[in-house]
Amino acid sequence: MTAIAALPEQNATRRTERIPVAVLGATGSVGQRFIQLLEHHPWFRLHEVVASERSAGKTYAAAADWRLETLLPGDAGTLTVKNLGDELESRLLFSGLDSSVAGEAEDDYANRGCAVISNSRNHRMDADVPLLIPEINADHLDAIEEQKKHRAGYIVTNPNCSVIGLAMALAPLERAFGVEAVHVTTMQAISGAGYAGVASYAILDNVIPFIGGGEEDKIETEPRKILGKWNGRFDDAPMTISAQVNRTPVIDGHLMTISAKLRERVSIDNVRAAIEAFTGEPQRLGLPSAPKRPLHYIDAPDRPQPRLDRDREHGMSVSVGRLRPCPLLDLRMVALVHNTVRGAAGAAILNAELLEARGLL
Amino acid sequence: MTAIAALPEQNATRRTERIPVAVLGATGSVGQRFIQLLEHHPWFRLHEVVASERSAGKTYAAAADWRLETLLPGDAGTLTVKNLGDELESRLLFSGLDSSVAGEAEDDYANRGCAVISNSRNHRMDADVPLLIPEINADHLDAIEEQKKHRAGYIVTNPNCSVIGLAMALAPLERAFGVEAVHVTTMQAISGAGYAGVASYAILDNVIPFIGGGEEDKIETEPRKILGKWNGRFDDAPMTISAQVNRTPVIDGHLMTISAKLRERVSIDNVRAAIEAFTGEPQRLGLPSAPKRPLHYIDAPDRPQPRLDRDREHGMSVSVGRLRPCPLLDLRMVALVHNTVRGAAGAAILNAELLEARGLL
Amino acid sequence: MTAIAALPEQNATRRTERIPVAVLGATGSVGQRFIQLLEHHPWFRLHEVVASERSAGKTYAAAADWRLETLLPGDAGTLTVKNLGDELESRLLFSGLDSSVAGEAEDDYANRGCAVISNSRNHRMDADVPLLIPEINADHLDAIEEQKKHRAGYIVTNPNCSVIGLAMALAPLERAFGVEAVHVTTMQAISGAGYAGVASYAILDNVIPFIGGGEEDKIETEPRKILGKWNGRFDDAPMTISAQVNRTPVIDGHLMTISAKLRERVSIDNVRAAIEAFTGEPQRLGLPSAPKRPLHYIDAPDRPQPRLDRDREHGMSVSVGRLRPCPLLDLRMVALVHNTVRGAAGAAILNAELLEARGLL
Amino acid sequence: MTAIAALPEQNATRRTERIPVAVLGATGSVGQRFIQLLEHHPWFRLHEVVASERSAGKTYAAAADWRLETLLPGDAGTLTVKNLGDELESRLLFSGLDSSVAGEAEDDYANRGCAVISNSRNHRMDADVPLLIPEINADHLDAIEEQKKHRAGYIVTNPNCSVIGLAMALAPLERAFGVEAVHVTTMQAISGAGYAGVASYAILDNVIPFIGGGEEDKIETEPRKILGKWNGRFDDAPMTISAQVNRTPVIDGHLMTISAKLRERVSIDNVRAAIEAFTGEPQRLGLPSAPKRPLHYIDAPDRPQPRLDRDREHGMSVSVGRLRPCPLLDLRMVALVHNTVRGAAGAAILNAELLEARGLL
Repeated sequence: MTAIAALPEQNATRRTERIPVAVLGATGSVGQRFIQLLEHHPWFRLHEVVASERSAGKTYAAAADWRLETLLPGDAGTLTVKNLGDELESRLLFSGLDSSVAGEAEDDYANRGCAVISNSRNHRMDADVPLLIPEINADHLDAIEEQKKHRAGYIVTNPNCSVIGLAMALAPLERAFGVEAVHVTTMQAISGAGYAGVASYAILDNVIPFIGGGEEDKIETEPRKILGKWNGRFDDAPMTISAQVNRTPVIDGHLMTISAKLRERVSIDNVRAAIEAFTGEPQRLGLPSAPKRPLHYIDAPDRPQPRLDRDREHGMSVSVGRLRPCPLLDLRMVALVHNTVRGAAGAAILNAELLEARGLL
Repeated sequence: MTAIAALPEQNATRRTERIPVAVLGATGSVGQRFIQLLEHHPWFRLHEVVASERSAGKTYAAAADWRLETLLPGDAGTLTVKNLGDELESRLLFSGLDSSVAGEAEDDYANRGCAVISNSRNHRMDADVPLLIPEINADHLDAIEEQKKHRAGYIVTNPNCSVIGLAMALAPLERAFGVEAVHVTTMQAISGAGYAGVASYAILDNVIPFIGGGEEDKIETEPRKILGKWNGRFDDAPMTISAQVNRTPVIDGHLMTISAKLRERVSIDNVRAAIEAFTGEPQRLGLPSAPKRPLHYIDAPDRPQPRLDRDREHGMSVSVGRLRPCPLLDLRMVALVHNTVRGAAGAAILNAELLEARGLL
Repeated sequence: MTAIAALPEQNATRRTERIPVAVLGATGSVGQRFIQLLEHHPWFRLHEVVASERSAGKTYAAAADWRLETLLPGDAGTLTVKNLGDELESRLLFSGLDSSVAGEAEDDYANRGCAVISNSRNHRMDADVPLLIPEINADHLDAIEEQKKHRAGYIVTNPNCSVIGLAMALAPLERAFGVEAVHVTTMQAISGAGYAGVASYAILDNVIPFIGGGEEDKIETEPRKILGKWNGRFDDAPMTISAQVNRTPVIDGHLMTISAKLRERVSIDNVRAAIEAFTGEPQRLGLPSAPKRPLHYIDAPDRPQPRLDRDREHGMSVSVGRLRPCPLLDLRMVALVHNTVRGAAGAAILNAELLEARGLL
Repeated sequence: MTAIAALPEQNATRRTERIPVAVLGATGSVGQRFIQLLEHHPWFRLHEVVASERSAGKTYAAAADWRLETLLPGDAGTLTVKNLGDELESRLLFSGLDSSVAGEAEDDYANRGCAVISNSRNHRMDADVPLLIPEINADHLDAIEEQKKHRAGYIVTNPNCSVIGLAMALAPLERAFGVEAVHVTTMQAISGAGYAGVASYAILDNVIPFIGGGEEDKIETEPRKILGKWNGRFDDAPMTISAQVNRTPVIDGHLMTISAKLRERVSIDNVRAAIEAFTGEPQRLGLPSAPKRPLHYIDAPDRPQPRLDRDREHGMSVSVGRLRPCPLLDLRMVALVHNTVRGAAGAAILNAELLEARGLL
């Protein structure tokens, strides 16, 4: 059993009437993670699975090439896969769709009145779509009102997997002191590319200093929206970010070295105190998937490390360590995020929990 | 056969009277690499092997736990290991001594009149010891005169394995435009820590954001001496460097992401031209271990990569790629150095070749 | 959180008065696993930690270089480490001692009246010491009577990590049809060698066809005792085993290919039915650490696999797959055991649970 | 530079008029290896490259996604890719075609009068096609006469990559003592599956006890043909082989544990002497790609190992070690073959060299 499978049980008791949900892109790697995380969810119940025409009509067990360490939940396996575009009974949809189809399909379902909670990149930078990390910018949900002016439902997105780690590590600094500039080099896990995304012949005994799909661009732009403000429109946080990305032979867990320049002169001790005190809406509301502490500061000189620290709080916490001065900017640190849990499906589920707690579903 | 074993044969014909040399710390991982690289050297002939008391008196074959892919050279295997401190017949010594003993032992042999070509860190920052990369600062050899004032022989050192990659990548920029500030994150191979330095349980499916022995400090200071000037004393290059280091599950090859701020405004094309035109004394002199091109610029968007590029020119070239603007400083790039060849024993041997070509042996 | 940490909570409720236990060799890798598994144990309470003179007198937190993914249990961290040989308050001792000291120390404590539950190899083949796998040979505990004739306490051992996987896979075949001959090739995880046992430079991009400490000999002899009978003395099962062992770059989980010749002609279907029906005392008694099914037969053509299947039932189940005829012997199959859980500390704890359930503590 | 690139230069001087050759399936992983090995070949000159319709008409540099450590040979890069089925100028064809198309295409070119030297599996077991390992069964080339009765050209194949290692290790035993039964478990490298054949997410921190494409069946049947006799038809060697295969996280090099039963009682020393004395036609003829010793017996208790031993004699030698008695059959040993050199393209080239030396081209 992986750590995350038991996730929702810790914080909340099971409701008698759970909300039926659909997973779009259910056979892919993010889709499978959604189905794993929803198995014991106290508020949500997997009701429909949706995939491409090739899978439609089959049982989910037959259509999905299940790759996770936990067993395929029996209930999920017997569901018949629906075709993307079909009318759905669920009003709450989790999208793990490939970006080649997510843009249109998510718009379509939102127009039909659904709440689409998406992990795909297509709508993240839309002018009226929240790019949500509940601990950081819960107030960005106000943008849903803007969407409601032109359609029955709405879309809420979560950031890129690396961005969640970076934005979480920067959030307490931005809140307390302001962040002016950031240098980040990522060392990313292979699972970020999906099951067949990285050939073993490419990555064994190797590091690849490149990740496709505009990874560096996402890391340089998404945090500015996340850490920015909603005032009827999104005002980006005025920080400059420079990102260099690498793929490493690690299963799960994106590690990153960060240097940052703050807007105030402040001691390292004060920065650390801000990181350790960081908390947000999910913690206040006791959301089922919320970690007790969204950021774990680790004291050891050689941590965080992907294999040792990625599963903290069921993979929903970001770990930070090695906070120290930078000869060039103000401070340096190392951060780690579980890229397929907090950095993808777990993030979307936490987003949906916040929507439910706010009465927006 | 590894690439490097054939190294010296390409550039120079074998001399009839080769110079007898000793290797200090001969049983360690750097010592073994020295012995491998010297096997077919056209100018130098392995004459003595020196190690700690535990190995002294044994044959080298019995004392060394040989770990390289090539076979232990037969001639080397039959040598009797001498005790560190023993009087030696060789006047040219290669030192791969552990830093716990290198400081004193190298001083001692230099005082006795030997030329000590050291890979150890102890004397790198000494006021009269060249920290030599022949392509960059061959003129630093003038510092030997300063040493000769107080002892019969002298010490010449090569930089830390990561520093060689970084300094080589920066050298054409410093020469042409001046470098003001550098941000570097390294992803280093396990061989940098010696044979038993990194436990497999520590590094498999993992990255460790820390390397002991003051690695970050070396990367922030050594390049300033290397790229600086000798005017009777060493004047450091006036650049600021910020380093963050990581250990990755890679056998050989230190990869690094670099951001740099130049003293002049210059186009990326001009920077690239400077990198591609870079050459130095070893190339002009046709030294046996000199690569034809000390820097290889690779055009592919995902290169250099350790496994694919570390062996270029028998591991003696540094590879550079992904040159592009930086939103924060001026430019970004990726560099790769074979840490145990160009970054260690191969560097020391090239240093000795320069000394010989200059008539300093 | 790893799977195994939550292990005991599934099967049994916590007793108000838990039995105080000591861990011998507490700072080593098996010792750490003992402490992890005991954290929430419903029957046993960690009371004393014992290590070598070097650690004695320190707190456990200071003495142990904690290497597991779960955090060091707070209660354990504050215990003061006792010196091996000291008088202990606990009467139940778990031994993860190194074989260089285990022989004498375990005898000593058993003579003083303690129940010593050992993972070390020293006493496994003793004429009156059970080599226990509770699902297979619970009746071997009768040998304790023999020990009691000459000392106040007793020793019970568990087998070598690979042997547990092999013996579990063979047990239903031996019971139902008799096993005459076995060919086994193991592909073992690096954790079997302890934290620093396998250098990353030795195993990355590699397989090593050798494991020291008499590994092949253990695999060829221990199963014969385990599957044999106690009739006042141990009569070995009359089977011949040929073992070839390999170390692979896998964190946890020993995989093995097995060919076996049976004493009866029987269909593959019948063999499979015997494997799937296999159960034993721990299941009947509902012991806290007992897996529901000691053997999991997996239908997929490419399973079991270490990373996907090692954690089944918190690492306490052995997985079997690819059962098919053998052109040479009768049948072939693949088996997998979590070497540090079911194959080491978890095995010892299950042994102690059986002793407690039998009233032997 | 990899070891193999320089391969042909060691044994033979370059001919003034080299034979023009074509490579079928030139863009695939075996095809690329052919082109690498042919770069400096003294007898053969790459003249045409052939691939599927998708690549036809492009330059080879544009069509091939070059993945080897050495640079794409410039001459090869400028060739225009021909379409499979096109009329070719070359009469000697190396085939690295995928088995989905190899069967028909190779027949077709052989019918047109070409000598087709194939690494594909389709025709290996044909009644008149040699399954050639020149050290073992050079006389099987007589079967070409049989082919010539019904077509203008002919096909010669080399065995599966694992089979070459196994058959080479068994050949001296079969010759000297007769082999009755063999048990083999392979631990195979990822490169055996082609560039994208094994996803990193599937194999990192893992071993997979399965390889598709009938791998076990090939290992159980091909050696019997290879070690058998040609008497107007192929008579298989009367040995029984049981194979179990595994994929391991190793780049190159198939390792295997072998147990064998001989037809004569013989000492281990005699078996070893037979292995060390083994030689064949390629050595007698001094073929350009022939290793000096086709089998290397290594004395160390933990060898051969893939990373340390795969490149012996440019990857053309098979390494053997750990020869010792077997409690079940007669003897046990470990063998290693470089699967993409001696086990694939290098094997085919050696086959062509033998044909040329015999005047059959």
